Amino acid sequence: MGDQRGPVGGLPVEVDPEDPRPLHEQLEQGIRAAVRDGRLAPGQALPSTRGLGAELGLSRGVISAAYAQLAAEGYLLLRQGAPARVSDAIRGTTARPAARSLARAFAYDLRPGLPDLVGFPRQRWQRALARGWAGAPAATLGEVDPRGVPQLRDALAAYLDRARGTSADPELMLVCTGFTQGLSLVCRWLREYGVDRIATEDPGWHPHRLVAEQAGLQVVGLPVDEDGVDVAALEDSGATVVVLTPAHQFPTGAVLAPERRRRLVEWAETHDGLIVEDDYDSELRYDRTAVGALQGLAPDRVLHVGSAGKRLAPGLRLGWMLVPSWLIWPLVTAKAIEDQGSEVLGQLAFADLLSTGDLDRHLRRMRLRYAERRVRLLRAVEHHLPGVRTGDDPAGLHELLLLPDGTDEPAVLAAAARRGVGLEGLALHRHDGRAGRPGVLAGYAATTPPAIDRAIALLAEAVAEVG
Amino acid sequence: MGDQRGPVGGLPVEVDPEDPRPLHEQLEQGIRAAVRDGRLAPGQALPSTRGLGAELGLSRGVISAAYAQLAAEGYLLLRQGAPARVSDAIRGTTARPAARSLARAFAYDLRPGLPDLVGFPRQRWQRALARGWAGAPAATLGEVDPRGVPQLRDALAAYLDRARGTSADPELMLVCTGFTQGLSLVCRWLREYGVDRIATEDPGWHPHRLVAEQAGLQVVGLPVDEDGVDVAALEDSGATVVVLTPAHQFPTGAVLAPERRRRLVEWAETHDGLIVEDDYDSELRYDRTAVGALQGLAPDRVLHVGSAGKRLAPGLRLGWMLVPSWLIWPLVTAKAIEDQGSEVLGQLAFADLLSTGDLDRHLRRMRLRYAERRVRLLRAVEHHLPGVRTGDDPAGLHELLLLPDGTDEPAVLAAAARRGVGLEGLALHRHDGRAGRPGVLAGYAATTPPAIDRAIALLAEAVAEVG
Repeated sequence: MGDQRGPVGGLPVEVDPEDPRPLHEQLEQGIRAAVRDGRLAPGQALPSTRGLGAELGLSRGVISAAYAQLAAEGYLLLRQGAPARVSDAIRGTTARPAARSLARAFAYDLRPGLPDLVGFPRQRWQRALARGWAGAPAATLGEVDPRGVPQLRDALAAYLDRARGTSADPELMLVCTGFTQGLSLVCRWLREYGVDRIATEDPGWHPHRLVAEQAGLQVVGLPVDEDGVDVAALEDSGATVVVLTPAHQFPTGAVLAPERRRRLVEWAETHDGLIVEDDYDSELRYDRTAVGALQGLAPDRVLHVGSAGKRLAPGLRLGWMLVPSWLIWPLVTAKAIEDQGSEVLGQLAFADLLSTGDLDRHLRRMRLRYAERRVRLLRAVEHHLPGVRTGDDPAGLHELLLLPDGTDEPAVLAAAARRGVGLEGLALHRHDGRAGRPGVLAGYAATTPPAIDRAIALLAEAVAEVG
Repeated sequence: MGDQRGPVGGLPVEVDPEDPRPLHEQLEQGIRAAVRDGRLAPGQALPSTRGLGAELGLSRGVISAAYAQLAAEGYLLLRQGAPARVSDAIRGTTARPAARSLARAFAYDLRPGLPDLVGFPRQRWQRALARGWAGAPAATLGEVDPRGVPQLRDALAAYLDRARGTSADPELMLVCTGFTQGLSLVCRWLREYGVDRIATEDPGWHPHRLVAEQAGLQVVGLPVDEDGVDVAALEDSGATVVVLTPAHQFPTGAVLAPERRRRLVEWAETHDGLIVEDDYDSELRYDRTAVGALQGLAPDRVLHVGSAGKRLAPGLRLGWMLVPSWLIWPLVTAKAIEDQGSEVLGQLAFADLLSTGDLDRHLRRMRLRYAERRVRLLRAVEHHLPGVRTGDDPAGLHELLLLPDGTDEPAVLAAAARRGVGLEGLALHRHDGRAGRPGVLAGYAATTPPAIDRAIALLAEAVAEVG
């Protein structure tokens, strides 16, 4: 009997002598699975160890050991002199579907914030990983520094000082899981510290609000015009902490005017204020050098946050903060307790990419590509959507397309999505989603020029349909 | 004048015609650096654009553009008809030290929880990354699924069901930054949901308490004996949520007895309770198959958390949770808001490692190595520290060495550290650090056998010194 494939002992369990696993292990796994999916019901008696052993050509002891293991795991109940039974504590589960992704997919993905992922320097990244890893001691993968690996903090400090005009100290730097975790840590600290209000730009990047509200903070919106955020409104707001995108306002593209930068720093000095500088895409300017970071003006007042998201890819989830010295320890402590520190291998690779100049090379290549795609988008809009106003700021990964007053923005987005075109509405990024002129944010960086033409033609159809 | 290397215009700024950067860019960067480090003081006047242009052999317009850029960045103040001046808003910074690590280094690192990092399968990991990445579309590095990439959730579900006896559904799984972030998310959700108390093992892994307290929860300790946690104490505690290490109690090594497993699930059913199962090292048993996960018994009551930390390396910061269906969405939402999702490339590599069986191969190799090192440790302790009691549980990465009653545990740890031996005290993991028998946790997995001998000899010296 022991050499036959099939069910055993009247159980809904099959064993196969040709399976490389020993029979008793197959039996154990089979019973476990049958109990779990309900084929063996709670309370059901199992065959005696003697009988089952005889049937399988195994010793009674081997069957007993399998039953004992399953009893140790809680699947079976064993009692002296009584048959083994399926435990009553077991709850069945149903069959498993294959994993799906929550990430949305569009034929034409023009959502803002996506860099060109096809242009991601895969080979260079893998080489950088191999090189950075080879140069790191084995212990690098052991206890992690919650602030990030020293190699990366050194490389980032040099890069940011050079490319962003910051005043970076690797000891006052915190590597985090993208911009978002950085802001989360700051907002939770503020809440615990007794701060209950934070100011953000309006319109401003939607997650600024989400993260702050998740941490229990009240969010105050500050108006934005062509010179960036309204600093007078900040002064009047009563808030002592503000999140800003000074180098390239999201989503309008405004650069904070010099006079306002000065006034902002003064505000921080006189109000004991903290400025969180979201420096998300500053190197991506196609006309001139990026305006330097605010942090360089006032390292004690500005918490500078950047990330590899738009410079390389969001999926790296690699961000960094330059933190005022008075604030570094609460944030490092929180990071150390909450997730111990960020993943190390990506840090080693990115450090190598920075110190070899490979990131600069990548950005130079991308700037040319994005500038061309931006022009293509503007031309397509001019051609297909003559009533739409666009910006004149050659920078970033998207353009804000202002729709004619009265256009039903959500309806346009839905009609575009039905045609396979992914966009974001301006309303998403407004504190009051119903206020202000309707508009859509159209990313151009991740889409080839012919696809940009087609996507804008489809968007024009969507606008026409909504009317 | 323009071809000479040296300071220009009486400024503490040097330009070099042989530098590949254009002169005006060198000038701009030089002034920025001088303002930042205080060599150019606030209010100081700069040379006229005409004079400086003549000196450098550049047009006046090029100098103006550099000044304008620096003014836009806030370093300079420009006023019509007056010389450019260094802005008053500037704050100097001091010279920068090189980056250091907060991670401690010991000549003999016997801290518990460290796997053999020298044995990390670097080549396999890099191959797995290349393979996993090659099979993934470019968009994988774009918008991330906060739950983790589908490939990994599928591979983990299959692995955990097979190796850990779980009942895993990839849709109800959440990839997180190590165990720690998983528990952080759960604790913050509990706090927001109105739960104010959580039970943990005492002694138990210290970060369980740290994370819960960081989230604002009150922590109740449950006694532990040779059958694992005291379930009766849980029933009496009034807590409805408990964090446990049922397969291999940390730090005692006890396996939760079958009767207690059943009673625990009953407790959860009757008290609407939630069991957080910390499944940190269960595959690392050297005598028999690991006891299956509690989660397989009651997927609706058990939140199962595992990580690659002890199975591969802590620096990967790669963890996973099998979440009851009623709890998955609050946790996914929190993860999506707080850091958007975990880093993608490590997930792709780990998915490949799992589905090719490379993780099983690695664990098989490590089990042999660790079993040998454990025996070596026990022998060394028997030889050098005859008064010390050790456990008899062949599993995990460390042994608990119980010191004679009355031994000054902190003094022993300090004396060992002075000799280069890193250990952890049992008191660290007790809720009341002063209660109970003194002991040290000695990890053996990351240390070669000769180094284990030497380290235990040094520990014996330390114990003798303390007396």
